[in-house]
Amino acid sequence: MFIAVDIGGTQLRAALYPEHGIEPIDKQIIVTHAGDEKPEDRLIDLIGSVWPKHGGVQRIGVAVAGPVNPKTGVVYNAPNISGWIDLPLGGLIEKHHKTTAILGNDANLAALGEWKYGAGVGHHDLIYLTISTGIGGGIIIDDRLLVGPQGIAAEVGHITVLPDGPMCGCGHRGHLEAVSSGTAIANYVETQLSQGRASILSLNSQKPTGRLIAEAAAKGDLLALEAFEYAGAFLGRAIADLLHIFNPTVIVLGGGVTNAKDILMNPVRRAIDESVMTPEYKENLEICFAKLGDQAGLVGALALARS
Amino acid sequence: MFIAVDIGGTQLRAALYPEHGIEPIDKQIIVTHAGDEKPEDRLIDLIGSVWPKHGGVQRIGVAVAGPVNPKTGVVYNAPNISGWIDLPLGGLIEKHHKTTAILGNDANLAALGEWKYGAGVGHHDLIYLTISTGIGGGIIIDDRLLVGPQGIAAEVGHITVLPDGPMCGCGHRGHLEAVSSGTAIANYVETQLSQGRASILSLNSQKPTGRLIAEAAAKGDLLALEAFEYAGAFLGRAIADLLHIFNPTVIVLGGGVTNAKDILMNPVRRAIDESVMTPEYKENLEICFAKLGDQAGLVGALALARS
Repeated sequence: MFIAVDIGGTQLRAALYPEHGIEPIDKQIIVTHAGDEKPEDRLIDLIGSVWPKHGGVQRIGVAVAGPVNPKTGVVYNAPNISGWIDLPLGGLIEKHHKTTAILGNDANLAALGEWKYGAGVGHHDLIYLTISTGIGGGIIIDDRLLVGPQGIAAEVGHITVLPDGPMCGCGHRGHLEAVSSGTAIANYVETQLSQGRASILSLNSQKPTGRLIAEAAAKGDLLALEAFEYAGAFLGRAIADLLHIFNPTVIVLGGGVTNAKDILMNPVRRAIDESVMTPEYKENLEICFAKLGDQAGLVGALALARS
Repeated sequence: MFIAVDIGGTQLRAALYPEHGIEPIDKQIIVTHAGDEKPEDRLIDLIGSVWPKHGGVQRIGVAVAGPVNPKTGVVYNAPNISGWIDLPLGGLIEKHHKTTAILGNDANLAALGEWKYGAGVGHHDLIYLTISTGIGGGIIIDDRLLVGPQGIAAEVGHITVLPDGPMCGCGHRGHLEAVSSGTAIANYVETQLSQGRASILSLNSQKPTGRLIAEAAAKGDLLALEAFEYAGAFLGRAIADLLHIFNPTVIVLGGGVTNAKDILMNPVRRAIDESVMTPEYKENLEICFAKLGDQAGLVGALALARS
C-alpha cells in the first residue's frame, strides 16, 4: 500500500492507496491552519488517520505547494504555509511514521500524475501547464520527471515573454504568469475598465474574475475576448518555446483558466501555429486538457511513491 | 578505436581516436562541395581515409550542421549542404563501412563534448549556447543529452524573447537568434548607422561585423557598446529562462560573439541578476566560456561514439 499527501495553503489531504489503481482505500481532508497547531504536526496526524490498521505502507509520496529539494526532503519555502522555510519535512514524516517519504513540488507531481494516470498516458515526453491564479508546470523527458539538481526546475510560469511587461507575483516583470494567468487576465480587464472601456463587465458590482470574464467572452463581450486573446497569444508563444526546447509529444493544460476552453485555446493554437519553427514540432503533438482535476496533486504524489 | 566526423557547409572533418583522450591518431579535412560529387560520397571516402589499416573501429560518431533523427540516422535537412533532405546518412555510412554510425546535431554534440571533455567536466546539468552567426545549443540533464523523441529538441536560439521583434533566420519574429546573434548585432549597428547615428564604425568602408563592432566597443564607441548591451540583455534573460526551466549548475558559452568577453558578458550577467526568480538558481551556478573551440563538433561526435 502507498500513502499520498497533498499539501496546500488551505487544505491538507492524505489518502491510502492499494498496490495498483488510483481509487483510494481511505481519504481524509483537513484545513492546513488551525489554532496554534503547526501545519507539519497536523499533517503527521493526518497521515496517521489513513494508516492501515495492520501496517504495510511501502512509501509515502508528498506533494507540496512550493519548491522542495527531492534529495534531502527539505521544503525551501511554502509561501502559503506559516513557518515553512527550510523545513526538513521528509525527515519529520519519516521519523514519526518509520516509512520512506518522498517529496515533490505539487505542479511537478501533477505532471507526473497526468503522465502516469491521466491525460498523458502512453507518452514519453510531456509538458504540463497549470493555468490558475499563477502558472506552474511539470516536464517529463524520456519517462523521467525533470526536477533539476536542486529540485527547482520546470518553473515554466517564470520565463520572460514580454520584456518590461506587467509585474509577476515573483517580483519580476514580463513573466508568463504575469500575462497569461487568471490573475493577469483579471488585471487586464480591470485596467481597461478603469480607463473607461465598454464591457458587460464592470468594476462596480463583482470584481471580474477569470470565470466571469470567460462567461462574458462566451457572450461576445469584446473586452473579455481581447483579454483571453492577449493571454492566449503569450501562452501559445511560450508553448512554442517549450516545443523548441523539449520537442514533446503531448502538452497537457490544467487549472481553472482552461475551463474557458476554446476562448483560451483558439488564440493559443494560433500563436503556436505562428511561432513554431518547422512543422515537425507539431506533427506528432497532442494538445489536451488535464484529466485529474483537483486530484492531480494527490495522484501525482501517489505516482511518486510508486516510482 | 573510434572515428568522429564533423559535417559543416564548408568543411568535412574526420578523425581517428584511440580508446581514451581527445588527441586524434589521424585527422583529415576536405571541402564539403567539390564538382559534381555528392557530399555524402565525399564523406564516406573521407572516413575511409582515416580508417586504421588493421581495422578495429568500434563506432563512428557523426556531427551534422542541421537537425537529425538520432534513432533512425536520418538527416532531416542540412540547409548548407546541397541535396541533404531526409537523407539516411547513418545507414549509408554503416552500409559502406560495416560499423555502427550514430548521428547528432552539431550544437547538441558540442554540448556533449564540452560536458565530457571541456568546460563542463564534473557537472551533471549543463546548458551550452553557441553565439555565432546564429544561436544553437545543447542541454545535458542528469548526465544525459536532451534530444527529444524526434531529435529536434534544445533549439534554444528559437525561443521568442521579443514579441514582434526582428525577423529570425528561421522566418519567425523575435527569436533569441534574431536579437542576440552576431548577425543580429551587425544588423542593429547597420540600422542605426543608416539612420545617421554617430560611430567610429561606418557603412562606407568595411561592413560592420561582430568582430569589428566588438573592437569599436572596446574603444568606447557608444553605438557598438549599445549593440552589445541590447544583445546581451536578451541573452541574459533567455539564460534566466533556462535556469528556471532546467536549474543547471553550469552555463557554457561558445561561438565567435563570446570573443567580445566582458563587453557581452557584463550586460548578460546584469540581465541574469535582474531576471532570476530566487537566489538558489544562481548560488551553485558557474557561467564560463567553451574550451573546445572549433573542435567542439568533432570532440562531441567522439563523445557520442564512446557513449
